[in-house]
Amino acid sequence: MEKMKLKLLYTDLKSDIDIIEKELENALNSSSHLINDASLHLLQAGGKRIRPVFVLISAKFGNYDIDNIKNIAVPLELIHMASLVHDDVIDDSDLRRGRRTVKAQWNNRVAMYTGDFIFARALEYVTAIENKRVHQILAKTMVEICNGEVIQIEDKFRVDQNLKDYFRRIKRKTALLIESSCELGAVASGLDEKNIRHLRRYGYFVGMSYQIVDDILDFTASDKELGKPAGSDLLHGNITLPIFYLKDHPIIKQFIEKASTGKVVEEDRLAMLKVVRNSEAIKQSIALSNQYLRKALKEVEALPNHQMKKKLRDIALFIGKRKF
Amino acid sequence: MEKMKLKLLYTDLKSDIDIIEKELENALNSSSHLINDASLHLLQAGGKRIRPVFVLISAKFGNYDIDNIKNIAVPLELIHMASLVHDDVIDDSDLRRGRRTVKAQWNNRVAMYTGDFIFARALEYVTAIENKRVHQILAKTMVEICNGEVIQIEDKFRVDQNLKDYFRRIKRKTALLIESSCELGAVASGLDEKNIRHLRRYGYFVGMSYQIVDDILDFTASDKELGKPAGSDLLHGNITLPIFYLKDHPIIKQFIEKASTGKVVEEDRLAMLKVVRNSEAIKQSIALSNQYLRKALKEVEALPNHQMKKKLRDIALFIGKRKF
Repeated sequence: MEKMKLKLLYTDLKSDIDIIEKELENALNSSSHLINDASLHLLQAGGKRIRPVFVLISAKFGNYDIDNIKNIAVPLELIHMASLVHDDVIDDSDLRRGRRTVKAQWNNRVAMYTGDFIFARALEYVTAIENKRVHQILAKTMVEICNGEVIQIEDKFRVDQNLKDYFRRIKRKTALLIESSCELGAVASGLDEKNIRHLRRYGYFVGMSYQIVDDILDFTASDKELGKPAGSDLLHGNITLPIFYLKDHPIIKQFIEKASTGKVVEEDRLAMLKVVRNSEAIKQSIALSNQYLRKALKEVEALPNHQMKKKLRDIALFIGKRKF
Repeated sequence: MEKMKLKLLYTDLKSDIDIIEKELENALNSSSHLINDASLHLLQAGGKRIRPVFVLISAKFGNYDIDNIKNIAVPLELIHMASLVHDDVIDDSDLRRGRRTVKAQWNNRVAMYTGDFIFARALEYVTAIENKRVHQILAKTMVEICNGEVIQIEDKFRVDQNLKDYFRRIKRKTALLIESSCELGAVASGLDEKNIRHLRRYGYFVGMSYQIVDDILDFTASDKELGKPAGSDLLHGNITLPIFYLKDHPIIKQFIEKASTGKVVEEDRLAMLKVVRNSEAIKQSIALSNQYLRKALKEVEALPNHQMKKKLRDIALFIGKRKF
């Protein structure tokens, strides 16, 4: 449903997104039945394909050529898919958007290798691109994403962390890949440095907002909307934005302590959710997300006149308002 | 000790290998303490650095430039290191060459992410190379290695597999990366197609022999020499060459059955080792390894006169004779 709404935002890109979807299918074809099954499972789960969309839209500002651009959009989405498969191992998650994760459907090892395989496939696509800068941006992004995941492990259940730690994590977890999607679309279509920079920064700000909203929804959306129990982030020790405003609340403190030793029962989860949902923390978090969105919109303003500017604005606004 | 002997084979490459060792240290530097600790743990474990050596030697046949060649040797070794860290998760191995594995010292998740990080670092090095063919060979190698690891999971404890399955596995597990090391050294130093092919094939044959000897040693070397219990491969369900000659032996059949349900006791392991060690299977496996070595030596013969030809021969002979 929500995915549908987002898709309405880019109906005129549909034929090119279909090309990318087809390419993703090809990319995930393996000689191993196990990998094929796991990959099919991932493809069927769908996804908003928001990274490819950012690549396409950014590229529209320059010399748009789908045959060239797809070689950037496909590996970016593959890197995203691979990192999700590995994330579910890190977070021990059995469900993602209502579907069983690869780790749950098979096991941690299969998830590790399916992720590796998808990473490797991403690389294969990248080799088709004859642009050193593109390679460098992609490699740097991958290094930082991997780095970020380890920082995420290190920060788990750490109540003495500060907001800077949180921003560092969501930057690497989400913002970087969206930033790179916008930047790479712009670079590959031959945009000038000034506009590459605007699109890159737009991607970064939108990415930060996107993850903040995701982190809010993990508390405010229903289990059904999330396709997994609400509050899963905190249950797994991920201290997200709303919690920074509530770290001294006795029920939250107790919940984190119990979660860190795996002693949370359903009653605890519901009590924790009630505290977060009824607190000012949600509003404060939304305000912060909106700050990022405003910065993103400023970057859009600075871009030259183009029909895609409206699209960039609409997507930013959609991200700020989405309900799940 | 054994590592020392191999190093004697390439003393004249020592200063360049030191450069690569230094680069590996730099490459594994991360902003995460956890990754730094795990990487240091890996570096301290050392290794024969045989892949970089093959790159260097192959490059010597062309226009040798260490500043160029190191950008190929370093990522190849990094890919190898990353795959070892992930292998230990797959095989649930606590020891490798007498040292605790990352998975054992920390846990599966840290091992997964340390491996991912090292893979990503490998990529970063690759971007410094402006040669599309190099990128394509490296990416293809990585895809096949990942593919191979999944096939290895699928083939575990599968007694109905044939020798073709085994060769397919060891090709992807070991031979491909050595093949690519030789090929890439040759490509990057501007060798002609004929000699690239000889070096590539040399690498493939040596790689196949190398893994067969490894698989033999897993049965014939002592626990101390291996730095882990002898027979670990079969204990983890990896059906290696000697076992193909013994699949109908009642003790072996029973051992595989017990191993597949985790019911092996020390007595079973010793009984299994006795059967394998006293069988013809070891001799038959050595004969097969020697066939590959002869093919490798033939490729060396076809190369133009060069002092490095002796080195390629010596390494091939060393691999055939090594005791652990």
